[in-house]
Amino acid sequence: MIKAGIVGATGYAGAELVRLLASHPQARVEAVSSVSYEGKKLSDVYPNLYGICDLVLTGADEVVEKCDVVFASLPHGLSEELAGKCLAAGKKTIDLGADFRLDSESEYAEWYGKSYKRPDLHEKALYCIPELHRSAYRGQPIIGNPGCYPSSVALGAAPLFEAGIAEKSMVIDSKSGVTGSGRGLTDTTHFPNCNEAFSAYKAAAHRHTPEIEQTLSALAGDKVTVTFVPHLLPVNRGIETTMYVGLTAPCTAEELHKLYSDRYRGEKFVRVLPLGRAANIRDVRMSNYCDIGIFADPRTGRAVITSAIDNMVKGAAGQAIQNMNIMFSIEEDCGLDFVPPAF
Amino acid sequence: MIKAGIVGATGYAGAELVRLLASHPQARVEAVSSVSYEGKKLSDVYPNLYGICDLVLTGADEVVEKCDVVFASLPHGLSEELAGKCLAAGKKTIDLGADFRLDSESEYAEWYGKSYKRPDLHEKALYCIPELHRSAYRGQPIIGNPGCYPSSVALGAAPLFEAGIAEKSMVIDSKSGVTGSGRGLTDTTHFPNCNEAFSAYKAAAHRHTPEIEQTLSALAGDKVTVTFVPHLLPVNRGIETTMYVGLTAPCTAEELHKLYSDRYRGEKFVRVLPLGRAANIRDVRMSNYCDIGIFADPRTGRAVITSAIDNMVKGAAGQAIQNMNIMFSIEEDCGLDFVPPAF
Amino acid sequence: MIKAGIVGATGYAGAELVRLLASHPQARVEAVSSVSYEGKKLSDVYPNLYGICDLVLTGADEVVEKCDVVFASLPHGLSEELAGKCLAAGKKTIDLGADFRLDSESEYAEWYGKSYKRPDLHEKALYCIPELHRSAYRGQPIIGNPGCYPSSVALGAAPLFEAGIAEKSMVIDSKSGVTGSGRGLTDTTHFPNCNEAFSAYKAAAHRHTPEIEQTLSALAGDKVTVTFVPHLLPVNRGIETTMYVGLTAPCTAEELHKLYSDRYRGEKFVRVLPLGRAANIRDVRMSNYCDIGIFADPRTGRAVITSAIDNMVKGAAGQAIQNMNIMFSIEEDCGLDFVPPAF
Amino acid sequence: MIKAGIVGATGYAGAELVRLLASHPQARVEAVSSVSYEGKKLSDVYPNLYGICDLVLTGADEVVEKCDVVFASLPHGLSEELAGKCLAAGKKTIDLGADFRLDSESEYAEWYGKSYKRPDLHEKALYCIPELHRSAYRGQPIIGNPGCYPSSVALGAAPLFEAGIAEKSMVIDSKSGVTGSGRGLTDTTHFPNCNEAFSAYKAAAHRHTPEIEQTLSALAGDKVTVTFVPHLLPVNRGIETTMYVGLTAPCTAEELHKLYSDRYRGEKFVRVLPLGRAANIRDVRMSNYCDIGIFADPRTGRAVITSAIDNMVKGAAGQAIQNMNIMFSIEEDCGLDFVPPAF
Repeated sequence: MIKAGIVGATGYAGAELVRLLASHPQARVEAVSSVSYEGKKLSDVYPNLYGICDLVLTGADEVVEKCDVVFASLPHGLSEELAGKCLAAGKKTIDLGADFRLDSESEYAEWYGKSYKRPDLHEKALYCIPELHRSAYRGQPIIGNPGCYPSSVALGAAPLFEAGIAEKSMVIDSKSGVTGSGRGLTDTTHFPNCNEAFSAYKAAAHRHTPEIEQTLSALAGDKVTVTFVPHLLPVNRGIETTMYVGLTAPCTAEELHKLYSDRYRGEKFVRVLPLGRAANIRDVRMSNYCDIGIFADPRTGRAVITSAIDNMVKGAAGQAIQNMNIMFSIEEDCGLDFVPPAF
Repeated sequence: MIKAGIVGATGYAGAELVRLLASHPQARVEAVSSVSYEGKKLSDVYPNLYGICDLVLTGADEVVEKCDVVFASLPHGLSEELAGKCLAAGKKTIDLGADFRLDSESEYAEWYGKSYKRPDLHEKALYCIPELHRSAYRGQPIIGNPGCYPSSVALGAAPLFEAGIAEKSMVIDSKSGVTGSGRGLTDTTHFPNCNEAFSAYKAAAHRHTPEIEQTLSALAGDKVTVTFVPHLLPVNRGIETTMYVGLTAPCTAEELHKLYSDRYRGEKFVRVLPLGRAANIRDVRMSNYCDIGIFADPRTGRAVITSAIDNMVKGAAGQAIQNMNIMFSIEEDCGLDFVPPAF
Repeated sequence: MIKAGIVGATGYAGAELVRLLASHPQARVEAVSSVSYEGKKLSDVYPNLYGICDLVLTGADEVVEKCDVVFASLPHGLSEELAGKCLAAGKKTIDLGADFRLDSESEYAEWYGKSYKRPDLHEKALYCIPELHRSAYRGQPIIGNPGCYPSSVALGAAPLFEAGIAEKSMVIDSKSGVTGSGRGLTDTTHFPNCNEAFSAYKAAAHRHTPEIEQTLSALAGDKVTVTFVPHLLPVNRGIETTMYVGLTAPCTAEELHKLYSDRYRGEKFVRVLPLGRAANIRDVRMSNYCDIGIFADPRTGRAVITSAIDNMVKGAAGQAIQNMNIMFSIEEDCGLDFVPPAF
Repeated sequence: MIKAGIVGATGYAGAELVRLLASHPQARVEAVSSVSYEGKKLSDVYPNLYGICDLVLTGADEVVEKCDVVFASLPHGLSEELAGKCLAAGKKTIDLGADFRLDSESEYAEWYGKSYKRPDLHEKALYCIPELHRSAYRGQPIIGNPGCYPSSVALGAAPLFEAGIAEKSMVIDSKSGVTGSGRGLTDTTHFPNCNEAFSAYKAAAHRHTPEIEQTLSALAGDKVTVTFVPHLLPVNRGIETTMYVGLTAPCTAEELHKLYSDRYRGEKFVRVLPLGRAANIRDVRMSNYCDIGIFADPRTGRAVITSAIDNMVKGAAGQAIQNMNIMFSIEEDCGLDFVPPAF
């Protein structure tokens, strides 16, 4: 039984990890920490967990000590120190924050306004969307778990860039449920402000931009740039990303569909939808699926790809568990058989 | 492995049964039927199930033939015939409709406008909210699965009536999510009509009234009447019921809380909340829990009890599986370990 | 042209006053104040008002100085001082807070934990739901604007208590949209916490209880007690109140309906709905209407009354303007002809 | 007083016209028709209008006879006949459907699958987004009221194409509230299906595509093509459109902002937002405003323009009244001073 710990367990990704790990047959949550709620029970903060996970929240050190793998669910800039402690103690780290996602320290500095404190750790870390990067896992003790938006984009656009048929600059229009903004109280996430509302935010200026470009550029073997505009959607969960990709040669919808079907054959968590069906966040809620719907626009020479994930599962906690499974050499889909509800 | 079949699988309760049974370790969905969609795949109707349950919808007879237990998810008036076929074929029936809920045929006729077609079957049927009626199960081949509202009321009010401290007429104010209205299209459930809307419906005239009174009267050993007013809540799932019970003798909140805690000790699916906390539909979503929050109003001599269930799970499909487990003598909570998400 | 000012203009009631007064033919917003945002434009805080009301937020004294009437939209305990200043300056005050609602200082102290600072002012103030109390207006310089819940209850229950056919203790189950909680950020009103959620709060312990009992007792000519349980509804606007009133003598639905129709004949803002129709918050949104739906439950001897108001209009800013019209002897419905949208 | 009539008054655009015209100082609704509800009161179908508009629904001919201007709110293919009758009777027609929007009959045939029945009428009709086309109004008796999406796109993109700095093919990602789908019941608009859901529909295949291209091409003086993908947003009202326009020369955000501010100076219903603020459907609800937020993406050479309208007002009924005002030579903003609520 893998002993799993969560540092930052009262954040949304942390709470979701507890929910998902509760039914994992080979792992159990052994310790949880929180700076703000240390000493309280997790179920006092999350009444849904009452009687299910009544663990008392501790400090981070206790989590490192007790567990085999530590999930770091922290604001950026705080994970390196924790990962260093884990490494020293021989424990594995899965970072759900942004600190181990970018290969380039200068890009990290540019977009996050900080430099690395422990550059040495980054050589021991792998950024891993399993469907794209699992083959690069060679025992690294740290995994940088991908961002929610970048996961939805990378899975949705990868086949086009791998096949070399995409122009080198694309438009990405993403829409995320409010849990993507986390548990912190803000004007934007006050119910009367975001209910019956919809707006773009950080247009062409979101921090996930370099992460997206890094992944697509690697697939394309050339620099790819993107105009990435996220929007806040008045739902709890889900990211829908609509991608507009200029094609370097004409391509029918059927050809695109075949390309995707071939690429993702055998990938349990990627569902290439039947031609004509767009991805809907409803159909992947609470699950680790990424649904992909494919369209061609021959009038303009673009492909339109729609992808849908649950931002808290495939976009965060679920993918983190998928990465944990990789790290511990167990079946990659172990404990992740969540069936999305119809409603 | 129990072979489970669903007649009326494209209705909401049917679709939820498929979702829940997908992770049941001792049962699997073997056949599904639908009048309207016969010949199509279930996942064509419910894209969330794409790649998960791609069974082709058949007729009802094929379900009876192939399965050990048949879940009937049909409009009232249609389950007796099916239950008769199951009985003849030696199969068990769990009816999620209203046909096997009322002991009194005259009350059925009064509220549903129909008489029984097969009165003989009703002697072989048990109406069963497990926490209240499981001891009455003695191998009956038919179980009448309780209604959603009555489940939320009975669990919430039972301790007061069992203890004999409740006045014989009570007020019940229930609020249900829109899935309670089912999959059929109506003006009421058209999004712009029920979003940002809220209203009572069938005030003091809902068909669940006699079912509620039947259960409470049995517990009280005397005729209990209720004023029951349901409301439509603009959420997908959940029933919150607020019960106002005049007490025959003064009782503090602490005493009430102790009464409930004692009554439900060991009941996995009933969570008596800490004093001062009201039940919230959020905290039981997607799970088989019934949360109960307890308040006293000494100024007026009433107890105020709040209960919350997921109408599709503890109020329908989950309780039906709980009943299936009873029928097959396996652990009552088997396959029902669903953790409610925080959001 | 009445010069109207708002102290506490960045709160929700304040912002709604600005919206409603913008189309009032005999009043205009002359000054607005805010402690937190002094010096900013109101439209910087409320982008919906961009180009419509770009007034700069000042201090409260400037509002008193510039205006004929001051709307106080403040936390309880802060309005007496302001009302005192207005009185000294010969200006009228309409208090949307709780400070001028209760006749009994001891009840105020019991429920709000404070004593009056200026008891003398209370003799110069009138608590006024226009449909019930307008005849008591005799030039008082201060009006205590009623609470949102008490407005929905008083209009809904008044005819029964005036007619003397109601038992002296009743059950009130209210449901309010989230704007009722105001603009302040709280865990409860964080979108992912209240979306798809529903719960009672302050069950049998809400501060509006004594205000409700004060009004109904006055109408009944005898002490009336209530069990009042409010709930938080995941919509922006609206209060639906379901009232359960034991009747002292049998009464048909038709008789009840006639009683209400007669009582409210000529009342523009009270719509007694056709028999069989329940009040729906949807149908009164953005308007000053109070809809009332009437049901009888002969099985238990209770009347069930449903009322619906927009908590921000008839429950706050609209009723305050109605009271302003009374104070200035203009048509009571002047500037309040808002048509509720269908969706 | 202009006598206004609505043919198809029980549809959503019709009901919104009634709401808006109720406060128009120079027009009143004189007659309303409906095929499905002839003989019923409008307020029986829309209880929000109870006591406000209790007109009895008639046939279309009676509307033509009684009114000076007829708003046609009909499915496409049905407005020509009505417009012909109006013309014969000397009445003006404003068509809220698609029949008088496209200049090219062949495009109409291609996208709507029908040919014109009365080609002669189209010479007497003007397609009119007032801010772009009002100068072309020369007494035409028929106005083709623009589609909701095209209105949001045209106002948002016009300055770039008029200035000649836009590439000739652009990406348009629109999101519409559910009222855009109308009053008819569909699986897609059943509450549990669209609540907590989000998806593209008719990707690169929506009928508003040729209307958008027609307007932009005329502004650009050259053929413009668009990839247009609409999405269904789980809110009642509002369209947010995000436009991605490649620029033919580098342009800073400040330069773009100045271009827009200059272009729309004096346009009451177009609000160019301060730099850095994105358009939000919340801020224009229930009003005739179109908000525009402007961003530059120098990394990719694109402008990102966000526009927000209320699809039922500026996208339908409000713009129709604006066009009525033009037709009757009264102030264009007469009766359209609706202040969007903050919540």
